Amino acid sequence: MIIGFDVGGTNARALLIDSKTGEIVDRDRESSAGSGPVLLATLLRMIDRLRRLNNTEVEAVGLGVAGLAHRSGVIHYSPNLPDLVEYPLGTELADAIGVPVAVMNDATAATWAEAKFGAGQGIDDFILATLGTGIGSGFVCGGRLLNGHNGFAGESGHMVVDSNGPTHHTGQQGPWEYYASGSALGRLGKSQARAGLFPAALSLAGTIEAIDGFTVAEALTRGDREAERVFDGFCRQVALGLANLVLIFDPERILLGGGLTGIGAPLSERVERWLERILLGGEHRPRVEVVMAELGDDGGALGAALWAIEDSDS
Amino acid sequence: MIIGFDVGGTNARALLIDSKTGEIVDRDRESSAGSGPVLLATLLRMIDRLRRLNNTEVEAVGLGVAGLAHRSGVIHYSPNLPDLVEYPLGTELADAIGVPVAVMNDATAATWAEAKFGAGQGIDDFILATLGTGIGSGFVCGGRLLNGHNGFAGESGHMVVDSNGPTHHTGQQGPWEYYASGSALGRLGKSQARAGLFPAALSLAGTIEAIDGFTVAEALTRGDREAERVFDGFCRQVALGLANLVLIFDPERILLGGGLTGIGAPLSERVERWLERILLGGEHRPRVEVVMAELGDDGGALGAALWAIEDSDS
Repeated sequence: MIIGFDVGGTNARALLIDSKTGEIVDRDRESSAGSGPVLLATLLRMIDRLRRLNNTEVEAVGLGVAGLAHRSGVIHYSPNLPDLVEYPLGTELADAIGVPVAVMNDATAATWAEAKFGAGQGIDDFILATLGTGIGSGFVCGGRLLNGHNGFAGESGHMVVDSNGPTHHTGQQGPWEYYASGSALGRLGKSQARAGLFPAALSLAGTIEAIDGFTVAEALTRGDREAERVFDGFCRQVALGLANLVLIFDPERILLGGGLTGIGAPLSERVERWLERILLGGEHRPRVEVVMAELGDDGGALGAALWAIEDSDS
Repeated sequence: MIIGFDVGGTNARALLIDSKTGEIVDRDRESSAGSGPVLLATLLRMIDRLRRLNNTEVEAVGLGVAGLAHRSGVIHYSPNLPDLVEYPLGTELADAIGVPVAVMNDATAATWAEAKFGAGQGIDDFILATLGTGIGSGFVCGGRLLNGHNGFAGESGHMVVDSNGPTHHTGQQGPWEYYASGSALGRLGKSQARAGLFPAALSLAGTIEAIDGFTVAEALTRGDREAERVFDGFCRQVALGLANLVLIFDPERILLGGGLTGIGAPLSERVERWLERILLGGEHRPRVEVVMAELGDDGGALGAALWAIEDSDS
């Protein structure tokens, strides 16, 4: 058995995985709050519990962590886990439990899960972009996961697409996630409501401040026309960043995941249409399919576990 | 023996390569002008000449072509070779000579040459960016060349970095190469000269219209202060696009090639300094080295030949 963790800003999710089949046997979740040693204790407690309840040994552990998670096991920097900066979480965990621990970025982990059991199966070249608070991304190229030299690859949400644009909370001007994350969809909705143009969102959320990406999505499913306009502009922004990534990677397929996944086909179809329109030389390229990712919230932990198997085999 | 070609907008360059050692045995060059069949005849003539003069057989041919060169052998689209659109150059050539022909993008080919014999040797994760008329690029990830699903990967010169910026000749607004190609350096120089601020460039080039990237480079080596200012702004633009690529790929090293290579260390050092300053989370990342590419004009043809060896082995 393998345990995979997805350590995000709020929760640490654990999956116990059958290393032969990749099947999810059990799961657990705890708060990820606290310093490095506190988080380490949390992870050890979850490992112990999953082991005992399922009466099994654990061969390896995979850790997917939001941020710059070095392949050596050190978390260099994580905006959502500020107490973890430069903490050797992977090494400490491996020392404590005596089995190999593979450390990787959470979106990269989710990408590997989609490659093995999700919408990337059998696709040698694909991109996963998760539209949530920010944008996470991961890449499979020629059938292999892109980790990068340190394990930091896939931070395309921070790719600057409008270098004279507004300043994002990262300090950058005009990064892709400023325009195309789930948060961005919420900001667009708020701004239209503030201008008095989006009564549907206001009535769904109660106050302007409570409008978020999910509000816009909900208004969209109810057929609201302003939601339709806001959503179309948002999909164009998603496609603008994806067009850059298509020029660089030449993928066969793009997977969209993250908090907005619930929108489903209206999102993937609209983004694909914009991508076709925007992409340079598009008329000379085979179609790039845009589809929804399939593994949802399990992707990060599952992918980290599957990567730990891969890693301990090599 | 293997023959590698680099087919650009003006010339087709050929290298005869020892397939055991990768050594360059002979070379040739002809105009690449004309329709697909005319270019095919040109390549066949060069192959025949290299064969006869060196009294050798040819096992395989590699073709590096500027543009969307499909791995199947069809040139889908090439802005610099407009007569070649949708022409099956690779397939026709293979039929005519009866040996395998590998077709790839020219910058991708040059990247592979740098990996094998240039500044990318022993580096598992690196980027090559060539600053010329436009920007070409190629990527080695985990020791493997990034080709993409169709063979179209590496078009990062068209990556949009300023989506509200000026319209480039590609029709895009604010692509990286608008700001950071060799042509861009020339445009910056012209603009300063037009404002009366760059007498050194004007006296070197004779007229404002004749000022190009090389003029600015020449004024720089002579210690001109305005050249210094123009060049610094240009290096910042190069670094802005590279920062995006570092976030995505997490490379260990960046190689700069193309027409401006002659500037050497002042270019790579200045770009590296800007990159350090701009790169998000830079203080938590190991340094990304910026160095000059080593193979110059031979890179494309050499890389295509080396790739043909790789391809016929697999």
